[in-house]
Amino acid sequence: MKKTTITLSLIATLTMSVSASGGLMDKAKKAGLQPIPEDKTALFKLTDNPKNPVTDKKVELGKKLYFDPRLSKSGLISCNTCHNLATGGVDGVGPATGHMWRHNPHHLNSPTVYNAVFAKRQFWDGRSPDVEDQAQGPMQASPEMAATKEHVEKVVRSMPEYVKEFQEAYNDPKFVPTFKDVADVIGDFERTLVTPSRYDDYLNGNENALSKEEKEGLKVFIDKGCASCHNGVALGGSMQPFPVAKPYKYANVGDFKGDKNGMVKVPTLRNILETRPYFHNGAVWSIEEAIKIMGETQLGTTISDEEAMKIKAFFGALTGKKPYVRYPMLPASNDKTPKPNLK
Amino acid sequence: MKKTTITLSLIATLTMSVSASGGLMDKAKKAGLQPIPEDKTALFKLTDNPKNPVTDKKVELGKKLYFDPRLSKSGLISCNTCHNLATGGVDGVGPATGHMWRHNPHHLNSPTVYNAVFAKRQFWDGRSPDVEDQAQGPMQASPEMAATKEHVEKVVRSMPEYVKEFQEAYNDPKFVPTFKDVADVIGDFERTLVTPSRYDDYLNGNENALSKEEKEGLKVFIDKGCASCHNGVALGGSMQPFPVAKPYKYANVGDFKGDKNGMVKVPTLRNILETRPYFHNGAVWSIEEAIKIMGETQLGTTISDEEAMKIKAFFGALTGKKPYVRYPMLPASNDKTPKPNLK
Repeated sequence: MKKTTITLSLIATLTMSVSASGGLMDKAKKAGLQPIPEDKTALFKLTDNPKNPVTDKKVELGKKLYFDPRLSKSGLISCNTCHNLATGGVDGVGPATGHMWRHNPHHLNSPTVYNAVFAKRQFWDGRSPDVEDQAQGPMQASPEMAATKEHVEKVVRSMPEYVKEFQEAYNDPKFVPTFKDVADVIGDFERTLVTPSRYDDYLNGNENALSKEEKEGLKVFIDKGCASCHNGVALGGSMQPFPVAKPYKYANVGDFKGDKNGMVKVPTLRNILETRPYFHNGAVWSIEEAIKIMGETQLGTTISDEEAMKIKAFFGALTGKKPYVRYPMLPASNDKTPKPNLK
Repeated sequence: MKKTTITLSLIATLTMSVSASGGLMDKAKKAGLQPIPEDKTALFKLTDNPKNPVTDKKVELGKKLYFDPRLSKSGLISCNTCHNLATGGVDGVGPATGHMWRHNPHHLNSPTVYNAVFAKRQFWDGRSPDVEDQAQGPMQASPEMAATKEHVEKVVRSMPEYVKEFQEAYNDPKFVPTFKDVADVIGDFERTLVTPSRYDDYLNGNENALSKEEKEGLKVFIDKGCASCHNGVALGGSMQPFPVAKPYKYANVGDFKGDKNGMVKVPTLRNILETRPYFHNGAVWSIEEAIKIMGETQLGTTISDEEAMKIKAFFGALTGKKPYVRYPMLPASNDKTPKPNLK
């Protein structure tokens, strides 16, 4: 008898939950939240770059170069050093730290590479339009990989295996890879780094993909206005004024002021529970604190501890499935390969 | 007619080559050269450690920790930073370079992790008996990962996924991983990093596994006396006096003098064409030069350019097949995880 009661009660709860969240799903869509498409063709359309078409060969080659520390001046730092695929696509430290242990001069934090393809702009000041263009930056930045274009080209051209892979990828037996080509195939690889999550399953129509707590969190997230910036497939990725309502609490960490109009790129919230520390200057380690600061700074509203906990629960559903990455075995350097320079 | 002649001549050459190298195979075995066993049971016997038995669960966990930079003080340096599985198991720079860009104080070069399990001693001064014991060193060394035992334990214990994996690997639901356990499972992973090559196929009985040039190189290698130190499955890995016949040409790079008896660990020659620069202080970038210096310094003999080229050809056959490594996705750090310290 008791068992039956519990079962009936459970069914009642589930039914309520379903009808309530049916409204929530519409609400989420109206707020501009969009899923990663389930359909592979639709996803490819969203992630491909007609100017730099994604092909299997370019992705595989780009993966090798993404992991190759020899592209850096020291030979020690690869794209993956700061955008580590093992740890949410980030380095987990405050300021990005690179060549000679130099920190980013503005104390800027490395954003995640996962789902970067969905962002409208790249870099915290949005100066770059896409991942291919972005990839050219860190290779040359003196506190990051500190290489020159010539260094990168010499390294890649010194290894016949790389040259052959470029020639095959571009279907041209005389192809000589340039710095831009290196960034392009790295960009192709990055375009595959998307992480569908239960949140996407939900927006794609699966009512049961989110728990009751996560749905409550999503509702608070929308009601508080978070989705006014964190929207689209990227849950961010556009340029927005910052700060809006109140000064940023940790503005003293670094001297970053955004682009020339004071606009700052909204970071994606996908995998946010894996990408501490938070904000452009990596000043905040607690997601609850980050949520509350955003309420004050951007929305001019107070987010209570309870509401922050609910939003955090929702964020749990944004942790996505990472693509399968076979760790690449790279071609051996040889007498023609520039020697690393640790200074 | 011409074709027939060429074919017959080819057969004659092949026959000569086979009979000549039959003698060579015996000669190699008599010189103490041993293959990685083809038989999996025999290989496991050779690589397992009864005090730290290799199991699938421990290997998988050890792989994660091998790639986890959060074990380091800065959160930026993992075992794989200096012993990069993508680049022959080494970092490809002169002196090992770690925390705060510090270099190894003796200008010591990072040895390859591939096939380290076959070495009788670990570290250039041989102070460590096995890979488990070795793994404890770099985690704590201030110019490497610069962590304390407590830091490593706090990091690992802060993530429930890691604790659960240890509990499952050790079949003990109350298991609390210690620093030693972390090093042990990393050691287990390293025990799987063996790279069978065509050289092994040859010593395992396949006469045709080596080319004519490689066989000639192997013969020169033995005749010159190289195998007196570079022998066993490791093609090295024992402690030997250094230098023997003549002072080492680049002794001024660093101040390393070996162990208390002036003995230095003989590096493995497996994958040697992938592990520039050479010698304990990484002073030599050309394998031909390295071969000739070894002749002078250790064997008191001159190795001609031609002989060095032959030996180099043989070394090509030592480039082995690397194990398949799926890049691990690591558990997310959380509020209990110690924050990285870049200083």
